[in-house]
Amino acid sequence: MTDTVVSDPGLLDRSGGQRLGDQLVARFTERIEARVLRAGMRLPSIRACADELGVARATVVEAYDRLVAAGLVESRRGSGFYVAAPGEPATPALRAAAAAAPRVDTSWLLRNMLSPGDVKFAPGGGFLPAALLDGELIASALRSVARQAPALLLTQGRPEGYAPLREQLALHLAGSGIGAEPERILTTAGVTQALDLVIQTFVAPGDAVLVEDPAWFVLFARLAYAGATIVPVPRLADGPDLVALERLCTEHRPRLFVMTAVCQNPTGSMLSLARAHELLVLAGRHGLRIVEDDIYGDFAAPASGRGVRLASLDQLRSVIYCGGFSKTLAPNLRVGYVAADDDTVAALVERKTLCAIANPELPERVLYKVLSEGRYRKHVERLRGKVDGARERAARALEKVGLRLPAVPEAGHFLWADAGTETRPLAAEARRDGILLAPGALFNPTQAPSSFLRFNAASSEAPELLRWLARALDRR
Amino acid sequence: MTDTVVSDPGLLDRSGGQRLGDQLVARFTERIEARVLRAGMRLPSIRACADELGVARATVVEAYDRLVAAGLVESRRGSGFYVAAPGEPATPALRAAAAAAPRVDTSWLLRNMLSPGDVKFAPGGGFLPAALLDGELIASALRSVARQAPALLLTQGRPEGYAPLREQLALHLAGSGIGAEPERILTTAGVTQALDLVIQTFVAPGDAVLVEDPAWFVLFARLAYAGATIVPVPRLADGPDLVALERLCTEHRPRLFVMTAVCQNPTGSMLSLARAHELLVLAGRHGLRIVEDDIYGDFAAPASGRGVRLASLDQLRSVIYCGGFSKTLAPNLRVGYVAADDDTVAALVERKTLCAIANPELPERVLYKVLSEGRYRKHVERLRGKVDGARERAARALEKVGLRLPAVPEAGHFLWADAGTETRPLAAEARRDGILLAPGALFNPTQAPSSFLRFNAASSEAPELLRWLARALDRR
Repeated sequence: MTDTVVSDPGLLDRSGGQRLGDQLVARFTERIEARVLRAGMRLPSIRACADELGVARATVVEAYDRLVAAGLVESRRGSGFYVAAPGEPATPALRAAAAAAPRVDTSWLLRNMLSPGDVKFAPGGGFLPAALLDGELIASALRSVARQAPALLLTQGRPEGYAPLREQLALHLAGSGIGAEPERILTTAGVTQALDLVIQTFVAPGDAVLVEDPAWFVLFARLAYAGATIVPVPRLADGPDLVALERLCTEHRPRLFVMTAVCQNPTGSMLSLARAHELLVLAGRHGLRIVEDDIYGDFAAPASGRGVRLASLDQLRSVIYCGGFSKTLAPNLRVGYVAADDDTVAALVERKTLCAIANPELPERVLYKVLSEGRYRKHVERLRGKVDGARERAARALEKVGLRLPAVPEAGHFLWADAGTETRPLAAEARRDGILLAPGALFNPTQAPSSFLRFNAASSEAPELLRWLARALDRR
Repeated sequence: MTDTVVSDPGLLDRSGGQRLGDQLVARFTERIEARVLRAGMRLPSIRACADELGVARATVVEAYDRLVAAGLVESRRGSGFYVAAPGEPATPALRAAAAAAPRVDTSWLLRNMLSPGDVKFAPGGGFLPAALLDGELIASALRSVARQAPALLLTQGRPEGYAPLREQLALHLAGSGIGAEPERILTTAGVTQALDLVIQTFVAPGDAVLVEDPAWFVLFARLAYAGATIVPVPRLADGPDLVALERLCTEHRPRLFVMTAVCQNPTGSMLSLARAHELLVLAGRHGLRIVEDDIYGDFAAPASGRGVRLASLDQLRSVIYCGGFSKTLAPNLRVGYVAADDDTVAALVERKTLCAIANPELPERVLYKVLSEGRYRKHVERLRGKVDGARERAARALEKVGLRLPAVPEAGHFLWADAGTETRPLAAEARRDGILLAPGALFNPTQAPSSFLRFNAASSEAPELLRWLARALDRR
């Protein structure tokens, strides 16, 4: 399997400071070494590359020849140019694995987004900064668990999760109007493992799976690994485009629709009550199961009327609900959960047992303590106030530097802002200056160019950062 | 996809106390409800079932009709009898998922093995009992980490793992003669996630993967989920059968061979130095990568000359080495690791990032503390003494009750004992009396009947258990 590389014209400097051929070689080398371009991928044809970048064909020929000479690219007679397998291990198995890499290769972007290393500002990051969270809340719970249950690491735990925690999670869900007995709740290592288990259990290679466009890019990569056909459904201001959804259901007969109702990533938008109802009726008609990723749900106060969860209408009849605490409590606690009907939970417990023989009871006991003492509820109330304030301030500040916000969300820390220019080159420029931006293309299932950026309101108020944005946008 | 159910004649009681038809209905109902028989699986034909169980065809017809009437089984014209999808959610997606279940359905056995619940004795369990481990060692490290790094749960961590721990792991590997810079080590949530990541990253559906026969049954289930073709290689007393291996390499062109050199599960046997060398040469000739699961390696003292790891010969050129601490330190610490060449580690870090956005730094810091203070080394030395003693005592005791041990391993807690009779019925009988036995069929890639049992020497010395075994074996 091969994949044609999309060239990125934004990366060429036409000021004449550096030869275009040299730039081409440098750019391809960088991307091959960073594994954005992976072994077995096909480079664009010479003509396509020349046309797309607006350079002479001779320039491309020269660049490709130099890449072949450097051993980075191989020419296959009659078929074109391909990224060569790295010299070192290069067993047939590894070579084949590289060639079979998913078509949505977000891994390089992912690594850069999720382990940014030495950045000064991370307005593109997804987690709240530690300063907004309550370190002492979680640390005191941890100390207390460490004192009270010294032998807890010596036991295997139950595959479905720590029983007292499942009871607390049932109460927590009841607070959002979702009725789920503890038996219908399965703990996981973060919402990430929750979604991973659901995909591994219910998605077979070739299955069509619906996702929102835009949505969280790790989801696309995970689905690609599972061999799913990713079918995007446009996300509108109040939820998925149901006309498109109906058509896509008929056309693709998808098994699952993975979506977020409350504080959707990256738009921050909310599913309306009317659309939620209509969506569930439509899903019922097409035998479509909805996987609700509610990791941001607690940013919307249950009593505020903001944020309708699908599971609170459907009551887990066909919705598979995934939640967690990485955004609101502690990124590294790594406790999430799935709530679903009995059969789904049984199937997921099976799969979970294969992935993780023992259930990690330490973080589950820490979370149990925080939930059962009512400290999570109070913490989240305070946190909402801080996030709401940051969101309003950041929205104003970003508009001031020249970004356009189609809407300011009612809750949560995400702002979806239009820069009026393709944002990947902007993000590349920012990265060189120690700033992590999240360009819109990351959130598109095919990584199509986008003029949007996702901002984390809690990390977007620094004057130096805002000055940088103002200057960068001004130049475009 | 369907699967023919293997009947189990051992389960029928021919004393006349209960009608055979009633027994058949009861047995099938139990197994369907316990999901041993899953939706979409085909029941044996009436003739096959009657012949196999030695009952009249009319008895089988009657039993099947009653199961159909109960809604547990459906009759498909011209095709036979199939386990019906459970009534409740039964969306097409779930139904299809159930039908697409892997052919090696170890999940029920797995759940029973790994979450045994209310057993009195667990000689079939794989972990050491808590009494043999050092609860205070791990608890004091945990308390110290909780005090010293209160904010550690608020950070994302690095996807490749906690850096100081990777340095300690490099030193630990050096102690076994394996040279691995910290950059070539990736931490995981136990050796289980290590193997899972390797399989997810390097095994595509349809790939042939070699396993040992017998071996650890969770591995078969995991490979089945990945869509691999499982190719068994007989395990001999001093390692895999290399004549068979050579033939299977030519025939199936496998990508990977997942195996254990030291204290192999379930046989406890050791790879000899000569066979290790020959195996690596053979693997090199066939472009076969070896995944070495060394979870039991620390049971063999490095200086004793017992236990040769493949990685200490190959130095991670083509071997992918997986290790962990669940067996020797604490089952629920959940820290394992992979050591491999740079490209393999890079590919695994990518896949890990998709599975677990944040790296769980809490248990990694706990392990770091135990390793860096030299306390693990001392603990394992003591533990080896205890395990060696238990193994010798248990071996004698098991032989006394009528089991035959072809060999007593040189290290580790596993004993592989021949009961002289098919052990699944024996295990079923034991389970009813609150005893967890591990029947040999569990360790066979096709779950073929076996007269062997795997014993955990550290859980096999109770007089009441030994009396039960003596009685049960005496009756057969």
